Amino acid sequence: MSLNTLFNPSSIAVIGASETPGKIGYEAMQGVQSFPGPIHPVNPTAEGEILGESVVASVADIDDGVDLALLCVPASVVPDVLEECATTGVGGAVSYAGGFAEAGEDGEQLQERVAAITDEHDTSLLGPNTSGFVVPHAELRASFASGVDRIEPGNIAVLAQSGGVAHSLAFRAVTEERGLSAMVGLGNRADIGFEEVIEFFDDHDETNAIVLHVEGTDNARGLLETCEAATTPIVAYTVGKEDVGGFAESHTGALTGEYALYEAGFRQYGVPTIDSGTELLDAGYALAHTPEANGTNVGVVTAQAGPGIIIADRLLAAGATFPELTDETDEIVTDILPDITYAENPVDTGRPMPEFGEVVAAVARDPNIDCVLVYELHEAALGFPTDALDGLATETGTPVLFATDGSPDLLDEDLADLEAAGVPVFRSPERGADATAALVEYARLHATTDNGTETEGTTDD
Amino acid sequence: MSLNTLFNPSSIAVIGASETPGKIGYEAMQGVQSFPGPIHPVNPTAEGEILGESVVASVADIDDGVDLALLCVPASVVPDVLEECATTGVGGAVSYAGGFAEAGEDGEQLQERVAAITDEHDTSLLGPNTSGFVVPHAELRASFASGVDRIEPGNIAVLAQSGGVAHSLAFRAVTEERGLSAMVGLGNRADIGFEEVIEFFDDHDETNAIVLHVEGTDNARGLLETCEAATTPIVAYTVGKEDVGGFAESHTGALTGEYALYEAGFRQYGVPTIDSGTELLDAGYALAHTPEANGTNVGVVTAQAGPGIIIADRLLAAGATFPELTDETDEIVTDILPDITYAENPVDTGRPMPEFGEVVAAVARDPNIDCVLVYELHEAALGFPTDALDGLATETGTPVLFATDGSPDLLDEDLADLEAAGVPVFRSPERGADATAALVEYARLHATTDNGTETEGTTDD
Repeated sequence: MSLNTLFNPSSIAVIGASETPGKIGYEAMQGVQSFPGPIHPVNPTAEGEILGESVVASVADIDDGVDLALLCVPASVVPDVLEECATTGVGGAVSYAGGFAEAGEDGEQLQERVAAITDEHDTSLLGPNTSGFVVPHAELRASFASGVDRIEPGNIAVLAQSGGVAHSLAFRAVTEERGLSAMVGLGNRADIGFEEVIEFFDDHDETNAIVLHVEGTDNARGLLETCEAATTPIVAYTVGKEDVGGFAESHTGALTGEYALYEAGFRQYGVPTIDSGTELLDAGYALAHTPEANGTNVGVVTAQAGPGIIIADRLLAAGATFPELTDETDEIVTDILPDITYAENPVDTGRPMPEFGEVVAAVARDPNIDCVLVYELHEAALGFPTDALDGLATETGTPVLFATDGSPDLLDEDLADLEAAGVPVFRSPERGADATAALVEYARLHATTDNGTETEGTTDD
Repeated sequence: MSLNTLFNPSSIAVIGASETPGKIGYEAMQGVQSFPGPIHPVNPTAEGEILGESVVASVADIDDGVDLALLCVPASVVPDVLEECATTGVGGAVSYAGGFAEAGEDGEQLQERVAAITDEHDTSLLGPNTSGFVVPHAELRASFASGVDRIEPGNIAVLAQSGGVAHSLAFRAVTEERGLSAMVGLGNRADIGFEEVIEFFDDHDETNAIVLHVEGTDNARGLLETCEAATTPIVAYTVGKEDVGGFAESHTGALTGEYALYEAGFRQYGVPTIDSGTELLDAGYALAHTPEANGTNVGVVTAQAGPGIIIADRLLAAGATFPELTDETDEIVTDILPDITYAENPVDTGRPMPEFGEVVAAVARDPNIDCVLVYELHEAALGFPTDALDGLATETGTPVLFATDGSPDLLDEDLADLEAAGVPVFRSPERGADATAALVEYARLHATTDNGTETEGTTDD
């Protein structure tokens, strides 16, 4: 089963299209407005046009056929509509309606009927009980949530068990002015699940990191083995540390729980796990924008000691190590800044200064260092050391991450320049530390022995 | 010793004022530009004006005297300059220079000389080795960091051991468009420390919550007893879980460490502790803007299950409880929404809808509920349930917090309306849950017995 028709269709039908704002059949029509191919509103009881597109009564009436169908119809009619789509050659479908496995016995039976249809035909179904997906590079926004047209192209794929969480994460990326290569809410996974979607986006040209939100799945081993086989870096946010009882089951029809098992399992299969959506996005952002770290040795360069201590504290707690700098680096640093506040690692320059970037470069070039995290409060008169950091990660093969705070109106331009130079920027010491910790954890889980064999998992503690 | 002259002066001298941008003596002059009273640049080797103010050679040359002196001079001359200030009646001083107790034996001796001067005279000194303070209500920005003029008035006082962390937190508040009643970086605390500053802002009319950043202090008991005696809610961010070694000592001359002791101590004395600057600010924001919760019973109302599970998971882990709703509330909710997805607590409406606010109100009025957290993805066609939530916390005495995600350009206006109606808003499920957890923890630590005696600390686990 290829998901190419689902995630990269040539044409779309919106079944149950409506002209009433607020209805899913209208909002889904709104969502696909940016799509460059044909869009067909389908509704047997409507006529004329919806958002400028001619309404047809049935997918069977669309002469050239349809690749992707968005099912904006209630649960009870989903099986019949899906069957009609499948028999008329629709390759991919999304079912938004709730009322399936998450809603008791009748819903379970309905979901079994849906699964039987997708088993029998060559149609891939996302959902049911999802708010959909977005692939910004394809201008494809198969979601009924408002504002999905604001999701810009990027290189991180957000794959979430919950459609709500998928959107929550995507809008946080919008707020941070970061793009995504995809946002997918899996919902009840009657047909396609984590494995198929991970495999698809592992092969996706625009995707450089995959971030997962996982509540629970019937096939944990399949998910873990898929993650292990993927070449794209993956990070996971596992929810369900506590027993939230019937509420979880009422969601996508899967129990959460077995949290500890998942967390350990993911690490064993090479996937760092983190504890919040912001950490998840930041980890994905770091992994997608830097070389991989070769180990856990972090060099911290800070212009202010207090945030530096926060960073060191968090990184040590996350398993990072702070090696001594080589004598050469020490000499370079004290040569640049004879009055430096603290020349050991973490290096504390005491204040931002014109030479700050040179100090960072010296630490990045230190052979003892696998990864560099820089912190400085933005100082308008100095700006950021963009010239010194431009190309530094590529030159050294060492990831260089940057964390800062400042008044947005003063720093936004300098920050955009720094990001344009390929440096991932995080807007607090804690976020910088957590993103660095994810790189370090990824390096630890994918450590190679001297003969090149990956030892991932075996050093897990 | 009153800190009123320090934090609420009538006139300011900037000693070591400079006309060179980037120098502390210039940036400090910039910082105080908003101050409505007289500003005197002091520099024996300069003439004319700096930023429009006439330079004088010495504080002794200022006819009407000076309340507050900002010492922009190197460590070595601080004792002499401070002595001159003290003998000419300056009531408050800030010393920015590093090179004191954090910098080895010579610095320690220098700091002892400084402490001896403040002991002898009626002059309160902030620092040395701090980037200063800001009191936005007084238009007073005694900091050399750029952008401090963006810090708007609000009702949360940020009191940080580190000047860098104070500024990091203040700029995060700026980014969130939240105001502060104060931002203070204590630095080396040669004279005034946590106790004096907490006491001052506990009595400060504009301050409704105090948030602390603590690395370590020689007098932990004094700090804890001051917190216990304060009537303003206090939350603390204790840094130093890991041994960051010499780096910490190189900072404000105090060792971090004894982290567990601090954390337990704070709780025992009624102060919730949290784990990041964002959590700290969110906790302060919640405590400053809502009634106190009467217990740990949380009611969650969500329009999307996935974020609701994240919230429930985090709140349970933090010690919150989820009581059943009363039969009356159940009836009201199912009356409003007969097809509701999940009517128990957490309540899941399945989607935002016009009746969403009524459901929230019903839960807030439930006598089993001590605190309400609402989550919904922003839906442009519906907006937020501002009318239903306006005044709800005041009417019920139950805090009502709101968490959301959405595209900033679409939700910012609705969000401002909601905040104007007195509802604290948080921009992710996790942040909403963490802020609610802080209210719950505060309630737990300040629980009163039936006879009205506070039992704070005794139920600590």
